[in-house]
Amino acid sequence: MQLLPGFRDFFPDDCARRNYILETWRTVARRYGFVEYDGPVLEPMALYEKKSGGELVGQLFDFTDKGDRHVAMRPEMTPTLARMVAARERDFKKPLKWFCVPQFFRYEKQQRGRLREFYQLNCDIIGEASPAADAELIAVLIDLLRACALGERDFVVRLSSRTAWQEFFAQVGGRPEDEYEFFQIVDKAERLPPEKTDAALAKFGLTAQQVLAFMHSKAATAELAPILADLTARGLGGFVEIDYAIVRGLAYYTGVVFEVFDRGKNERALAGGGRYDKLLSLMSDGQTDLPALGFGMGDVVLANLIHDVPAAQAQLHAWLARERAVDVYVVIAHETRRPEALALVQRLRDAGLRADFPLATAKLGKQFQTAEHLGARHAVLVGDEWPQVKVKTLATRAERLASPDELLSLLTPPKIPVILSGA
Amino acid sequence: MQLLPGFRDFFPDDCARRNYILETWRTVARRYGFVEYDGPVLEPMALYEKKSGGELVGQLFDFTDKGDRHVAMRPEMTPTLARMVAARERDFKKPLKWFCVPQFFRYEKQQRGRLREFYQLNCDIIGEASPAADAELIAVLIDLLRACALGERDFVVRLSSRTAWQEFFAQVGGRPEDEYEFFQIVDKAERLPPEKTDAALAKFGLTAQQVLAFMHSKAATAELAPILADLTARGLGGFVEIDYAIVRGLAYYTGVVFEVFDRGKNERALAGGGRYDKLLSLMSDGQTDLPALGFGMGDVVLANLIHDVPAAQAQLHAWLARERAVDVYVVIAHETRRPEALALVQRLRDAGLRADFPLATAKLGKQFQTAEHLGARHAVLVGDEWPQVKVKTLATRAERLASPDELLSLLTPPKIPVILSGA
Repeated sequence: MQLLPGFRDFFPDDCARRNYILETWRTVARRYGFVEYDGPVLEPMALYEKKSGGELVGQLFDFTDKGDRHVAMRPEMTPTLARMVAARERDFKKPLKWFCVPQFFRYEKQQRGRLREFYQLNCDIIGEASPAADAELIAVLIDLLRACALGERDFVVRLSSRTAWQEFFAQVGGRPEDEYEFFQIVDKAERLPPEKTDAALAKFGLTAQQVLAFMHSKAATAELAPILADLTARGLGGFVEIDYAIVRGLAYYTGVVFEVFDRGKNERALAGGGRYDKLLSLMSDGQTDLPALGFGMGDVVLANLIHDVPAAQAQLHAWLARERAVDVYVVIAHETRRPEALALVQRLRDAGLRADFPLATAKLGKQFQTAEHLGARHAVLVGDEWPQVKVKTLATRAERLASPDELLSLLTPPKIPVILSGA
Repeated sequence: MQLLPGFRDFFPDDCARRNYILETWRTVARRYGFVEYDGPVLEPMALYEKKSGGELVGQLFDFTDKGDRHVAMRPEMTPTLARMVAARERDFKKPLKWFCVPQFFRYEKQQRGRLREFYQLNCDIIGEASPAADAELIAVLIDLLRACALGERDFVVRLSSRTAWQEFFAQVGGRPEDEYEFFQIVDKAERLPPEKTDAALAKFGLTAQQVLAFMHSKAATAELAPILADLTARGLGGFVEIDYAIVRGLAYYTGVVFEVFDRGKNERALAGGGRYDKLLSLMSDGQTDLPALGFGMGDVVLANLIHDVPAAQAQLHAWLARERAVDVYVVIAHETRRPEALALVQRLRDAGLRADFPLATAKLGKQFQTAEHLGARHAVLVGDEWPQVKVKTLATRAERLASPDELLSLLTPPKIPVILSGA
């Protein structure tokens, strides 16, 4: 019985690697003051059909449930977020800084960096039109990757603007209703031969050369300049490049857009997002009209990049070793001491320590082997010296006798509270 | 656009309450040396049809995918676990102590404590036949609830044994192939009038009185006595009662079975599980033959009980307040100081602190209000004293001037490493 194509089993080591990414995401997002929300894995199909463009509808795991409802496993979060914000907008102070770490499902062709399920961090800021919000969103995105020990040499945020392209298009006489078609041509312009782009642009009186010239200009527009200045004040300017080749496929972006790529260009985009100031109004039939911006970052491409960058890989491995290690392995010298060993194990666990011990009778040597195998920091022998135990620190081989009370205070140092005296 | 019946939106406060339960589960399971695994949300339908009994097949969210595969959203974990263990059994030292915190999907009638999606902690021990494993599993179950500030007065583990009922049945001449039918009658005996039970038992030459007499005996069998002794040595004996009324509905249990209920009997079962020594062999067509035991604990009933027990509720609220609070809110006295404020925010976040600040220009009073609203521990004013900042501890109103370096060292006390000197 095999698992489905494009789906993953997470054996303990795989699960720890997944959790490393999910925990890093949560930690950094919270550090930025984002708060977590979540929605249902299954939603009414109509929720996804409503969203302008509906690009993902053809890739859905959708079906009719036992109550005759057309439902779909979530392929993205924005429609759910829009529904939730519209429902309770007044309960929250603006701007909202919300994040979630959902698993998504898309029936796609499998390839490197693309499965049929994946996790994706979503960060959104809702209710703030100022460029400081764009900078804050891009800053958290950069720090999410920095927290994985990825640096300026490993990735770049390619920053662009739908507004810039809108202005370019308007200046040559383009009509707003043709914008989306024009963006689609721009999106493909670097990948197609110029003749094809020329042919597609002819109806707008434009040439590939004009479009590519604007695309390759590196000057920040008035919209992008304050965002770059903000990021530079944070010391994050080196992670960002203006790149008008980024226009993003989805129809609903209205201003700043960006994508993150590895510098080596070996992978698909690590993340992408932008402003969608009109989407909440559209999704809520005008009920909620708030400026908004957000991005998504998937786990699959990020895991590939971490694998390829030695510093990132080393940090992951150090984390995995810590994650794996138990604090104490209690060794039972004789079965007659099992009740005392059980009581000690309980005390250690009650103190918050990660403690394990042999469930079945085993020879001393084998128990110490198990302690090593589990990466235990300390092995504690419950034997003839009871009520003292022999504590062995496995890394140093140092041994000492201790009472259970001493053992507990050795292993659980008191926390120092932060005291801020008045001045 | 409403969400589907039986599904939940997790607004930030709901999400934090959910995370409290999921984090407590993870923390306690890891304290016991369990390691986390996970599997796909979507599985081949045949995986669930294969399992003996197939009790859940009628409640599945199942459908045909775009590749013409009959698939189902997971209603439980055991079939996935069995597949995974069979695939890589030799890679792991026995016993395996594995846990996961999956979300499950069942098309059921909604009622108190029952939705169409829910989270469930699963803990399993695989490859250990000794009663020490049963005790370890029940101990972690008890400590999961103790960690939610629930005590002996709040819940009880009702411990029983399929083996005891098998022996009872065999002694009155029952045949092994009739056992499951007999268990189903026993399962309902307390809820049905004795005449109905008498009628159902007649074919086995038994009466309701005989069954109820055995059911209400409180003596531990030879199988259960060492488990109770083990739990008593841990100081956990008071959480467990022998109760032969527990037989568990599912067909695959082979020995010890148990369920956990609130003492007030207001809720559905908080958790249930037992030994399933033959299931792995059955699921893997004989490839993997390991004794095994496990339990599941759902989030919905647990959340209800936490809500009803004041101490548990108080601990949850303290956790929520900590979870919600940012460490520092940076107040910007004049917009000219924004670059310095941004640099400071970046330093605070790089140091692992949770820091926030105003994205838009706002008056000082409003910024301090936002700091209070976010539950900030400290407000830090970047203004005329720069390069010094004014640090205000919001709980005490204490204020002092500090340089950014001083602020950092005030807020991030050094960690004390555990040093164990040789003796």
